[in-house]
Amino acid sequence: MTAGKVNLAEKLASFSDHWAPRIVAHYNDHEIRLVKVDGEFIWHRHEETDELFLVLEGILDIEFRDRVIVLNPGELMVVPRGTEHRPVARAGEVKLLLIDPRDMPNTGDEATATKAIEI
Amino acid sequence: MTAGKVNLAEKLASFSDHWAPRIVAHYNDHEIRLVKVDGEFIWHRHEETDELFLVLEGILDIEFRDRVIVLNPGELMVVPRGTEHRPVARAGEVKLLLIDPRDMPNTGDEATATKAIEI
Repeated sequence: MTAGKVNLAEKLASFSDHWAPRIVAHYNDHEIRLVKVDGEFIWHRHEETDELFLVLEGILDIEFRDRVIVLNPGELMVVPRGTEHRPVARAGEVKLLLIDPRDMPNTGDEATATKAIEI
Repeated sequence: MTAGKVNLAEKLASFSDHWAPRIVAHYNDHEIRLVKVDGEFIWHRHEETDELFLVLEGILDIEFRDRVIVLNPGELMVVPRGTEHRPVARAGEVKLLLIDPRDMPNTGDEATATKAIEI
């Protein structure tokens, strides 16, 4: 998979469910993931890793306990490890590129996670 | 810097030189870099790390010894560690997002590298 290029729009067109990340490339023990989201996710944290969000389409709120960061298309944010946060798509579907460590559960907890799958 | 969001277009508008990467965020001992390129880079490899290229604007050829991958806007590629490659912007300026390990020289060699600087 890492041997070729990845067209983000083509990959995004290949699925339609929400909050179910797809792995499109591997980079240094990390996964490049695409995900479509809508509505509220759950409050969670990742104790051992930062998490990168890049908005490709739509508007994403990243809520923290003391503030909200609003990400527009072409904006990215790194949520530092250990920081409780909740992604919320208030204004319709949002298309995101994420970077997470290999096999990291999207909720920070295997019990509640939707496993990322390769496409 | 990781505490806030990063608007890629604003960051790109803040510099104009070529092949001089800017660090816009930190993620798990890696740097998220923006760079503008034009023309040919040098043949090089990174023995210890993969390198991620995401084209934001323009068309980038990534030449390998046995093939060329052409990246259009919205396309990404991971060049596997140890793989000799040469990025070439044949059709004018290209704006790229890169992910590299902290302090990694852009040529794979401190002697020839242009050091990435924080913006």
